[in-house]
Amino acid sequence: DEAETKGGLKIVSDDGNFSAELGGRIHFDTYFFDKDDTYYYQTFSNDDDRKEVVNTTDFRRVRLAMKGKLWKWKYKLERDFAFSGTGGLRDVYLGTEIFNGDLLIGNYKPRRSIGELTSSNETTMMERAFATESGIYDGRGRQQGIGWNTYWCCHTFGINLFNLRDPGDPLNSGIGAATRFTWAPINDYKSTLHLGASLSYEDANKDTPPREALVEYAGRRGPEQLVALSPGGSDFFFGEFGEEEFYLGRPGGDVLIFGLELAGTYGPFFAQSEYAFGNFSGDIFLSEFTFEEFFGAPPNFFCDPFTGCFIGDQSVHTWYIMGSWAVTGQHKPYDEKNGVFRSIRPNPPEGAFELTARYDTIENRDIPGMKVSNFIFGFNYYFNPKVRLMMNVTLGDNNFIDDRTKQFAIRIQGSW
Amino acid sequence: DEAETKGGLKIVSDDGNFSAELGGRIHFDTYFFDKDDTYYYQTFSNDDDRKEVVNTTDFRRVRLAMKGKLWKWKYKLERDFAFSGTGGLRDVYLGTEIFNGDLLIGNYKPRRSIGELTSSNETTMMERAFATESGIYDGRGRQQGIGWNTYWCCHTFGINLFNLRDPGDPLNSGIGAATRFTWAPINDYKSTLHLGASLSYEDANKDTPPREALVEYAGRRGPEQLVALSPGGSDFFFGEFGEEEFYLGRPGGDVLIFGLELAGTYGPFFAQSEYAFGNFSGDIFLSEFTFEEFFGAPPNFFCDPFTGCFIGDQSVHTWYIMGSWAVTGQHKPYDEKNGVFRSIRPNPPEGAFELTARYDTIENRDIPGMKVSNFIFGFNYYFNPKVRLMMNVTLGDNNFIDDRTKQFAIRIQGSW
Amino acid sequence: DEAETKGGLKIVSDDGNFSAELGGRIHFDTYFFDKDDTYYYQTFSNDDDRKEVVNTTDFRRVRLAMKGKLWKWKYKLERDFAFSGTGGLRDVYLGTEIFNGDLLIGNYKPRRSIGELTSSNETTMMERAFATESGIYDGRGRQQGIGWNTYWCCHTFGINLFNLRDPGDPLNSGIGAATRFTWAPINDYKSTLHLGASLSYEDANKDTPPREALVEYAGRRGPEQLVALSPGGSDFFFGEFGEEEFYLGRPGGDVLIFGLELAGTYGPFFAQSEYAFGNFSGDIFLSEFTFEEFFGAPPNFFCDPFTGCFIGDQSVHTWYIMGSWAVTGQHKPYDEKNGVFRSIRPNPPEGAFELTARYDTIENRDIPGMKVSNFIFGFNYYFNPKVRLMMNVTLGDNNFIDDRTKQFAIRIQGSW
Repeated sequence: DEAETKGGLKIVSDDGNFSAELGGRIHFDTYFFDKDDTYYYQTFSNDDDRKEVVNTTDFRRVRLAMKGKLWKWKYKLERDFAFSGTGGLRDVYLGTEIFNGDLLIGNYKPRRSIGELTSSNETTMMERAFATESGIYDGRGRQQGIGWNTYWCCHTFGINLFNLRDPGDPLNSGIGAATRFTWAPINDYKSTLHLGASLSYEDANKDTPPREALVEYAGRRGPEQLVALSPGGSDFFFGEFGEEEFYLGRPGGDVLIFGLELAGTYGPFFAQSEYAFGNFSGDIFLSEFTFEEFFGAPPNFFCDPFTGCFIGDQSVHTWYIMGSWAVTGQHKPYDEKNGVFRSIRPNPPEGAFELTARYDTIENRDIPGMKVSNFIFGFNYYFNPKVRLMMNVTLGDNNFIDDRTKQFAIRIQGSW
Repeated sequence: DEAETKGGLKIVSDDGNFSAELGGRIHFDTYFFDKDDTYYYQTFSNDDDRKEVVNTTDFRRVRLAMKGKLWKWKYKLERDFAFSGTGGLRDVYLGTEIFNGDLLIGNYKPRRSIGELTSSNETTMMERAFATESGIYDGRGRQQGIGWNTYWCCHTFGINLFNLRDPGDPLNSGIGAATRFTWAPINDYKSTLHLGASLSYEDANKDTPPREALVEYAGRRGPEQLVALSPGGSDFFFGEFGEEEFYLGRPGGDVLIFGLELAGTYGPFFAQSEYAFGNFSGDIFLSEFTFEEFFGAPPNFFCDPFTGCFIGDQSVHTWYIMGSWAVTGQHKPYDEKNGVFRSIRPNPPEGAFELTARYDTIENRDIPGMKVSNFIFGFNYYFNPKVRLMMNVTLGDNNFIDDRTKQFAIRIQGSW
Repeated sequence: DEAETKGGLKIVSDDGNFSAELGGRIHFDTYFFDKDDTYYYQTFSNDDDRKEVVNTTDFRRVRLAMKGKLWKWKYKLERDFAFSGTGGLRDVYLGTEIFNGDLLIGNYKPRRSIGELTSSNETTMMERAFATESGIYDGRGRQQGIGWNTYWCCHTFGINLFNLRDPGDPLNSGIGAATRFTWAPINDYKSTLHLGASLSYEDANKDTPPREALVEYAGRRGPEQLVALSPGGSDFFFGEFGEEEFYLGRPGGDVLIFGLELAGTYGPFFAQSEYAFGNFSGDIFLSEFTFEEFFGAPPNFFCDPFTGCFIGDQSVHTWYIMGSWAVTGQHKPYDEKNGVFRSIRPNPPEGAFELTARYDTIENRDIPGMKVSNFIFGFNYYFNPKVRLMMNVTLGDNNFIDDRTKQFAIRIQGSW
């Protein structure tokens, strides 16, 4: 049989019934923070609970992935060693072709958000926007389930039914569904215009953990802000805090998210934008103490001293606009099969250089003042198609707790 | 050198001194439970401690395994990513041929029980019977040690000496030994008759955890029942419960298990049965409270109010009978080297369909009423020799706590 | 492309731009202890806290490693499955050639100590000496950072800048640097003389864990002795012990270590020696209770009843001398690129047999009586170049707590 390497190991059988390959990726980051002194030293007198940011290095991703073909079926098994336990499982599925589309069973990304579906090897910025797992889909980027997706001419369509767990979560009976449709009315060698829409519904049930919109607004390993939450399927999932304990009116709750995508390329230029609107159902009462524990600051609205602060259904809005310019002239190719853009590829031995920027914002309209934004700019240098250096400066802006932490981040990344 | 794939990666050196291959398996399950309402809502008024079953999905196995040849030695390194930490190590050993047999050093299955030794890719039902690690050998399917096994004509013989730990257990000084002998008086292209016997002895010592017979009688992730236990090598291994604490008369204790196997095929028909008898040595006193904590129901025998419930040596009996019929006509091949049956293999592009059933029961004759059984029926559909779909309906029957929980389970499974 | 195996999987592309290989190692140990009865039963009346040694088996290393080439870059990704979580990451880096040397970015061993830099597949004794991660560099054998190393004629030189964390440690802002220079004035087919020197500096900062010199003086899994420590970057990193709690005068602190190497071969004979001197900066006060908690025995010096025992800067000295004789005549080759010795290699089908011994000692001159030594002797039998059996007898001598525990250890080891 035929052996092949582009940095990984690949063997294809002569009869075409089998293939197997082993690949991987290393993303190694360094973070420097410029913390907001006003926020750290004046707003809060007792900052014991407040975790300060730390300048450090960190493996963002350390993955091996094996995939292959077994007659008409295929498999993929991917493990991220930068994460512990079963939480390190990534794409793990079996699949086959059915009705001109791919049927996948296992753990993978439901079809929603172009930013989420773009491979972490191909992202324009170091971290994804708030319209993805980095925000509104926090901890839910991959789920266990069954899905089918297809493409024709200049369209893609996918639909998924899933259990509300990834392999690192506890067993639970929550159920979700997602679907995405994209259309590329223009797609030639020089320019692409991409339009997309997705819908996601997640319904909590027995033992489902709370679904949150949670953002690291000043970059990875920076401060976090909880923007919205919908309680899960456990009666008292947040533990007990004595007299100041959390009170939960109605366990369960569902989350409905609708997303729109607009993106395109023109020669060396690339722009991408998403808007997502989510409804996180609530009907919970928090003591003021608990509210501040969760959200990092006291509520800006009236809380009954006896029943606490009421959080009902929450309307969450997020959008971003991102652009890049390949100074060295390369064009970002469009992946017609998945409706996402790939990163530029230099032609070795030459390299490539790309300038990048993004403005991103998320808001919970049912918690007064809950709005978080950031602006990121930076560049990517491609040593070759598989090794790149990224630099990002992130200017965080947390309106709710009034924090303006900044981050300078560097990544060296290789994939094979 | 020669590269080869049957879904995995394999390279064999031209001089025959070396070979290496990387394979794996994914078993992805979905469970639905029909819980026994009588049991949940009437028997126990305060069911706080009682974990309710959850309908969910679950990765049962996500493994990569590398094996190869180094001149006259061989190695195998297998990791199950559906389990955390060192508890995810499976077959990890070095071996060589000596006296016409295989000498293995490391972590692997001691030779006992045809059901246990059948690969999880080849089992007839989704879970193994109570005569294996799924019951009488709970948590002890693989152990660290040294072993030798051989086969000739229609016989196999194996013997093992091992430390009472698998890599996920704490360091301990317990020692065990096991041996198995099988004979296949009939073994031709159409029919096989297999007879076998095994003996296992496990002697606790310093820091040895308790050895238990523990069963999930209504399928994987369903309710558990502790059937028997032998204390280990720690003085107070069960922690402290205040005045109601566990009292241990004599730490240590040994477990002796004797097993018999009878199995055969005739064309598309297959039947397999095992009987195992075990003595779990005791000499311990439990408070009534502790007894109920462990066994899920109050004792049916007299407990002295001061010294508690006495549990001495326990005689544990388990047997099962399992059968299958390959409707599409395939025959289960016999693995002469290991004395086990393989699953049927369709000839692609055709598939194969198999009906399956098993009755399984386990009993501790020294704890009155401690008898647990189940009946399972289902089918396996083979898309090809490496991908199959399994469905099992499990009718659990826990006589001790009077629970009749049922499960409907689906598995999609691929191996390469 | 070209497929190849020497026990692992390797594919090299025809154009030379790519290569990829997957290898691994299994080290499986058995330990028997002869504990020092005087120490266990007389010195301490209440030995509750004192963990007794346990005869047991243990996987010392279970690793898979993938490495390869991507045009002018290379990568390595190694995971040790005998360790849990991100603590199991070993060499994980991207690298390229620059100025005639190797630039490495990621997690790997900073250049210091010939004993540390010798691969665990090639060590003469089962465990490394106190001048390595097994003592003075405890828990700091690999660090995350950037480094460059080169060699020419008979010299090697390397320099590293690193964050004071390995992937299993928490995020921290500590910074370190290390450099090593070696010279081999003699290096021919029969004899080699190696001289080396290294310097390491580690400066604690925010969240840096304490840096310790910690030794298992009676072999792996035997009793441990803390020899020296420098506090890290957390205010109260040791938790709280009520009134007897630890008090810390000045958090932070740096560690400076200077090492000298002398080693050589002459035909089948090999000798290697290192001397390392370290300054672990302190300025901390411990209660007598805490001192004994940490160091295992009460202080031999005056402690103020109110402020506790003062530990200032600590001068730590360690040296060892190790030798081996290949009875079957093989010669240990010298790795010119890294300035280390490899183990002997038999020419299959013949084996090789080697006698080994080492005397090793470490001392903290600022804690009276803090001196720990051991003497180890044993042999290595090489079945072939990739599989060996090791036996070591370790005679431990802990002067501080007056313990003379002994160990008999066996290892079976394979690599591919």
